[in-house]
Amino acid sequence: MTQAAPELVASNKCFDGWLKRYKHSSTTTGTEMVFAIYLPPQAQTQPVPVLYWLSGLTCTDENFMQKAGAQRVAAELGVAIVAPDTSPRDTDLPGEHDSYDFGSGAGFYVNATETPWSAHYRMYDYVTDELPALIEQHFPVTPKRAISGHSMGGHGALICALKNPGRYVSVSAFAPISNPINCPWGEKAFSGYLGTDREAWKAWDSCELIATAKERLLILVDQGEADDFMQEQLKPEALKAACASAGHQLELRMRPGYDHSYFFIASFIEDHLRHHARALKQT
Amino acid sequence: MTQAAPELVASNKCFDGWLKRYKHSSTTTGTEMVFAIYLPPQAQTQPVPVLYWLSGLTCTDENFMQKAGAQRVAAELGVAIVAPDTSPRDTDLPGEHDSYDFGSGAGFYVNATETPWSAHYRMYDYVTDELPALIEQHFPVTPKRAISGHSMGGHGALICALKNPGRYVSVSAFAPISNPINCPWGEKAFSGYLGTDREAWKAWDSCELIATAKERLLILVDQGEADDFMQEQLKPEALKAACASAGHQLELRMRPGYDHSYFFIASFIEDHLRHHARALKQT
Repeated sequence: MTQAAPELVASNKCFDGWLKRYKHSSTTTGTEMVFAIYLPPQAQTQPVPVLYWLSGLTCTDENFMQKAGAQRVAAELGVAIVAPDTSPRDTDLPGEHDSYDFGSGAGFYVNATETPWSAHYRMYDYVTDELPALIEQHFPVTPKRAISGHSMGGHGALICALKNPGRYVSVSAFAPISNPINCPWGEKAFSGYLGTDREAWKAWDSCELIATAKERLLILVDQGEADDFMQEQLKPEALKAACASAGHQLELRMRPGYDHSYFFIASFIEDHLRHHARALKQT
Repeated sequence: MTQAAPELVASNKCFDGWLKRYKHSSTTTGTEMVFAIYLPPQAQTQPVPVLYWLSGLTCTDENFMQKAGAQRVAAELGVAIVAPDTSPRDTDLPGEHDSYDFGSGAGFYVNATETPWSAHYRMYDYVTDELPALIEQHFPVTPKRAISGHSMGGHGALICALKNPGRYVSVSAFAPISNPINCPWGEKAFSGYLGTDREAWKAWDSCELIATAKERLLILVDQGEADDFMQEQLKPEALKAACASAGHQLELRMRPGYDHSYFFIASFIEDHLRHHARALKQT
């Protein structure tokens, strides 16, 4: 489907490439959506592959681009980075802005089935279908895609890759919510977006998806050991057990002293970018 | 003078070192002040030299540490970075919070002589005397100091170095307000803090200080050519002329396409850190 060109909102030169913010009318969410794209200098002369970055609770498209320091490495490697927002905005659904972990800023990368959320909160379709199609139509990129994210966005990256064999060449995550059907953040979000049938939740849970995955891409994960959310919300041990049980390759790197912040992400983003670039540049 | 130990406010591991925020009761400003210090991994075993970073209008100690990507290079080079706030806060002076370019977030690194500002707005003494003394007393650092900054903080870095021969081993700036006595931001700030006698302003203007400087440290400056503030507020041409006239070494690098944002700073901070590290590590 041909989509209208997105409208440029802001533009900053960065490491000899360009960081650009756009808005567009999303047919998936029925709202205006904003995203950011970093185009490395190589994109001025040839199409480049794309890493999709999914952010965590409360974030917009801006946090990663301002705080992770990823553009430096992306400019060296010739990889574009696309960062969508974390939810539709301004739908004015009841309670949309009442909590940091549900509604705006907390779309959880699922397709909501419960009213009133199901009309707009379809972030899974948005980030796996509509946004890549828009990017590949209007920017100098190849159809090679990698995906990564942080916390709620780490969960998002994992489920997007696990549910779409062949769509991404590589996947990684920082401190992902690995087993949302068994943690407070996930239970709150899935109850609201997906309803009370816990069976239906399993289609959106990495640990469940790993058991039956049709593609066994290596999962690269960094997890800070001083992360206050690790035990109750993130559950790297559940991810480890699910991968071990299914024979799914996992490189889980526990990082002593590191917390849940962007200072942790910045410290290890270069490793992730190099991991993705190796896969993205294979012909 | 022995100063009480500052109180830890926050701490994040970052590139194997530690970013820490502290608050302390400042005798210079008569207020509580917050600052950030990044201690590279080398500081765990030996004292390290310090780069002082002065931020621009509206910033706190946080902007640079979150957005510049400097910790990666500081960790490699073994250099600490100290970022003070840009003004006293919460003095509740009339009009303190009315504009972005005067009062809180806009101390301009001068010692105010006009009431009511003179009681608290003494950021020059704070950043050149009280803060370094505090840092050198309570942290594992050497007395080797370098200084840099952005915009208002670029002005600050230049005047601090020019007014204190021997105190800093190197100085640099990003898009500094080079000639504040001849631009709207400077005229507004200096009128408010220093009064109507324009002669008195000259003691706080880089271009004026360069004419009579007792030490001729190379000045390293990066300036984006797409910076919206360049012509009216920053005046790199005035800095160039002042240096040429006085025989002061200036390395002014004009950067096509770059603007006034932290994306510009992030793109070139590594060059500045390496410049400072060369001077800081000379014995």
